[in-house]
Amino acid sequence: MKTNRNIKIIASGKYLPKSVSSSEIEEKHNLSKGWSERYSGVRSRYHATFESNGYMGARAIESALENSNLKLSDIDLIIAAGATFDYPLPNQSSITKSELKEGLKYNIPTIDIDTTCLSFVTSFDIASKMMDNYQYKNIIIVASEIGSKGLNPNNPETLTLFGDAAVAVILSCDKNSESFFVKGAMKTYTEGVYHTIIEGGGNKYFFKDNPYDEELHSFKMDGMKLLKLAKKEMKSFTDEFFEDLDYTMEDVDIVIPHQTSKVGMELFKNLYNLDNNKVMSNLENHGNCVAASIPLVIHQCIENKKLKRGDLCLLLGTSAGFSIGASLFRY
Amino acid sequence: MKTNRNIKIIASGKYLPKSVSSSEIEEKHNLSKGWSERYSGVRSRYHATFESNGYMGARAIESALENSNLKLSDIDLIIAAGATFDYPLPNQSSITKSELKEGLKYNIPTIDIDTTCLSFVTSFDIASKMMDNYQYKNIIIVASEIGSKGLNPNNPETLTLFGDAAVAVILSCDKNSESFFVKGAMKTYTEGVYHTIIEGGGNKYFFKDNPYDEELHSFKMDGMKLLKLAKKEMKSFTDEFFEDLDYTMEDVDIVIPHQTSKVGMELFKNLYNLDNNKVMSNLENHGNCVAASIPLVIHQCIENKKLKRGDLCLLLGTSAGFSIGASLFRY
Repeated sequence: MKTNRNIKIIASGKYLPKSVSSSEIEEKHNLSKGWSERYSGVRSRYHATFESNGYMGARAIESALENSNLKLSDIDLIIAAGATFDYPLPNQSSITKSELKEGLKYNIPTIDIDTTCLSFVTSFDIASKMMDNYQYKNIIIVASEIGSKGLNPNNPETLTLFGDAAVAVILSCDKNSESFFVKGAMKTYTEGVYHTIIEGGGNKYFFKDNPYDEELHSFKMDGMKLLKLAKKEMKSFTDEFFEDLDYTMEDVDIVIPHQTSKVGMELFKNLYNLDNNKVMSNLENHGNCVAASIPLVIHQCIENKKLKRGDLCLLLGTSAGFSIGASLFRY
Repeated sequence: MKTNRNIKIIASGKYLPKSVSSSEIEEKHNLSKGWSERYSGVRSRYHATFESNGYMGARAIESALENSNLKLSDIDLIIAAGATFDYPLPNQSSITKSELKEGLKYNIPTIDIDTTCLSFVTSFDIASKMMDNYQYKNIIIVASEIGSKGLNPNNPETLTLFGDAAVAVILSCDKNSESFFVKGAMKTYTEGVYHTIIEGGGNKYFFKDNPYDEELHSFKMDGMKLLKLAKKEMKSFTDEFFEDLDYTMEDVDIVIPHQTSKVGMELFKNLYNLDNNKVMSNLENHGNCVAASIPLVIHQCIENKKLKRGDLCLLLGTSAGFSIGASLFRY
């Protein structure tokens, strides 16, 4: 397998809506004080009020461009990576582009890639392959997620867990750079296909015949089954991932897991027996932001210099479907 | 730009639900006899009854595998290319895989790529790039679309135009083959972002606050504006597409346009002044099948031998968002 594509993260940017503390949610929904932190591991998160996915995504893109030396006109492709969306049609990337101040000026192609919570991890892999062929020099991946609207008020587990966020990452192909993308991989374990679902709102339970119902139209997850499946499959997934590489898990400087939940993150650390300093988390202050979680941690690690040039970084997570995915790169 | 990736379409398969004649629709909705054929150019199409996107997609994949020498275990990646879906979460590709008879047996990764009507064209380009790096040997792209549920009974234009269909195409990387992928490209023209839309059902008009409404939750298109924008941009898009290639539009043996509508197809033929024998259409008997239209024409052209090994084939179309896209390959 051909590896080491010269792809570099040159900048990132984020947009966060209004902060919502756990005590606000606990009071509103008659949960005991501290419930959220104890069970979900989340103390506060951000929830959209007036914002749309497109609005938040566009602000994140503009912020990433400001943090780079590039202008929008330098961008060859915009990938919207995520599971939540403003409209069933058109695709989210077209909408997000249209919300950019300069969106009308340039006919940059826009593509949606959805592997639910792994959408950024997958898009990073795909983008690096698209650039390796030189067709594209600069690609923006934007993950803008509003999961908060689809939360069931009767389900404290999910209600306290999820946050909204938008993050944009700019990738450049630079043959002279020491940064490179090593490998991306994913597997879909169909036994878990219905462990996480929003049933209503697609063709299966079309609105016309299925009026809004908190159970039908809200996000549902079977946390125990998810943990069990992750526990069963993650270790062998990563063993296989490193099998054909010159690196091992021990060579990785920074691991950025998907910010699933408190127990999910603990399982993760136990599975791999990793040094706590290596495993990055923002769950406590952001919750699970679906596909925006992993790039948000990347952005924050760049800002606070936990992720330094030359570091070997592993993105690793699970997603609805059920899939496990990883991307390994030298930052 | 690196071109000529050794990617070959080795087989395809389809699934079509129940046939619905235009006279049935005309009678049911008090349209004059022949209205559909006169205005939309559609005499009959297929509409899902008991089927879901996943069910239809799985049957198309199984049919494509039967038409090949491959088994499901030979497949390295399943891409669901399309705009319509069974559930808001998980992604359609996970659902489609789960509907395969052998879906549970293999942990094949599944990815959704959505550029609305251009999803197959984009996925073909992306898949060929993913295979060129040798990570994947065989990729299935499946476009399974049920647009019929989101049609407004008060809008005869869309009501008579759209059909449902699922098509799967198997791509293989074969360095010894004479088949190759030449180039893919897309541009997104944001001035047309709202020319085609389903407003309700995402985060913007969330179900909770917006009960089902025929206008809000149905597909809307401004046909005149779409035609105008296509007329303005398509010619220069294709001129630029061929600019850096050793081929011209005249070298193309078979053009497979997106099956937009009768007037859309006429505009297309007039714009390029193409030999009628070169431009393939199945609009009359299938309607506009969203992202499944182009691969359905490919499948039929292979079956009826209009598309022969060695032919240079151009896929070209427009999509909601508004985008123009093309993929050129030697079959």
